Amino acid sequence: MSTGTIYGVGLGPGDPDLMSVRADRLLRGARHVAFFRKAGRSGQARRIVEGLLHADVVEFPMEYPVTTEIPVTDPAYNDALSGFYASCTDHLKQLVGQGEDVVVLCEGDPFFFGSFMHLYTRLKDEVPVQVVPAITGMSGAWTATGQPVTWGDDILTVLMGTLPKETLTEAMMRSDAVVVMKIGRHFDKVTSALKAADLYDRAWLIEYASMPNQTVQQLAEAGDKVTPYFSIIVVHGQGRRP
Amino acid sequence: MSTGTIYGVGLGPGDPDLMSVRADRLLRGARHVAFFRKAGRSGQARRIVEGLLHADVVEFPMEYPVTTEIPVTDPAYNDALSGFYASCTDHLKQLVGQGEDVVVLCEGDPFFFGSFMHLYTRLKDEVPVQVVPAITGMSGAWTATGQPVTWGDDILTVLMGTLPKETLTEAMMRSDAVVVMKIGRHFDKVTSALKAADLYDRAWLIEYASMPNQTVQQLAEAGDKVTPYFSIIVVHGQGRRP
Repeated sequence: MSTGTIYGVGLGPGDPDLMSVRADRLLRGARHVAFFRKAGRSGQARRIVEGLLHADVVEFPMEYPVTTEIPVTDPAYNDALSGFYASCTDHLKQLVGQGEDVVVLCEGDPFFFGSFMHLYTRLKDEVPVQVVPAITGMSGAWTATGQPVTWGDDILTVLMGTLPKETLTEAMMRSDAVVVMKIGRHFDKVTSALKAADLYDRAWLIEYASMPNQTVQQLAEAGDKVTPYFSIIVVHGQGRRP
Repeated sequence: MSTGTIYGVGLGPGDPDLMSVRADRLLRGARHVAFFRKAGRSGQARRIVEGLLHADVVEFPMEYPVTTEIPVTDPAYNDALSGFYASCTDHLKQLVGQGEDVVVLCEGDPFFFGSFMHLYTRLKDEVPVQVVPAITGMSGAWTATGQPVTWGDDILTVLMGTLPKETLTEAMMRSDAVVVMKIGRHFDKVTSALKAADLYDRAWLIEYASMPNQTVQQLAEAGDKVTPYFSIIVVHGQGRRP
């Protein structure tokens, strides 16, 4: 019996039509798919592929342990996640050992933030793993704004909303174009950093990029509302343009 | 007679299997395709779609005016390019006015650097234009290294090799992960900036990412050779990983 392969397949920003030809083919042919989700939720990655999977597919939902009570800086947070990733890895290795291929569904691009990387580092030296890149969520977001994000020799900085305000402001001030991800409950801090860097009036807020419920608005018009975890802020560069 | 539509279609990093399902469908159905190329060359974008186009397709190669003798800072450079983009735009508008759809082939992602943006800004208020995002060249590059590029709250900075050395060094020092594009004849300067930022030993050089002639090597092993214009340097982030 031959060994199977783990495919870390990027699904792109959310519209199934924006998956790669390779991702589409792997998904439709898969007999085993694995995906992360929060307990009690259907999971964004799984929702994207609704209707595309084979009738006989076996699904392996990997449910995050509840960690909202533990600060990210607490070692207990890392321990909880580490144990979780180890148990997911064990199951995947077992399937591969039985000769099965497994497609792991990844929102966005597997090697650009995201959770698959934590499985990948645990698997890559033990079983065959192939990674299929994808359109990033930020690419879906800037496309949705109808404006190019970078021109000429613009400097683009990608920032997580989880960073301290001073770090955000400083990085923003040194950039021509900016993307901010993981905004969620950091919305006020991110907004305040953008104001301090004098970029607030040029910032756009994109929610659910490329999906049916996509919204695109100037940040200044979005008001104070808290945004979902996977909304993205884009500040377009203004570089050289003949 | 109805008006046609211009489709700015991102082709991704180079492997046709990494084009989006939508891009693949639009390309195969297209009766008019336009693409940039240097005079006397077949053009990278056109090469990527070799074998995919319809038998009756009409091709419109848009050949860059020769500008190598003119410094980028000389107004004559901008004038030459500006006139070129205007004449391409005129031809595309004419086709659309005749009710034809036109697919413009774009390497990488249309709104992330690249030349399509110069047509887009001239066309978007005059005729229907739709943009299909794609996997960026940098995503193809970091996937090729077999290592995730960003973790946790890493700061990613994307830099053009055309920038001054001091600008490059400063931006690199303030980043966790770095991508450098448009390296070509700026190879020595970029290398020297990476050394100054103490990132040289962590840098990877990827040429022709995702294509049959792809090469991946640590920059320190690449030596002093000049690299092609579309090679990419990646420094991976080292952020939080449970």
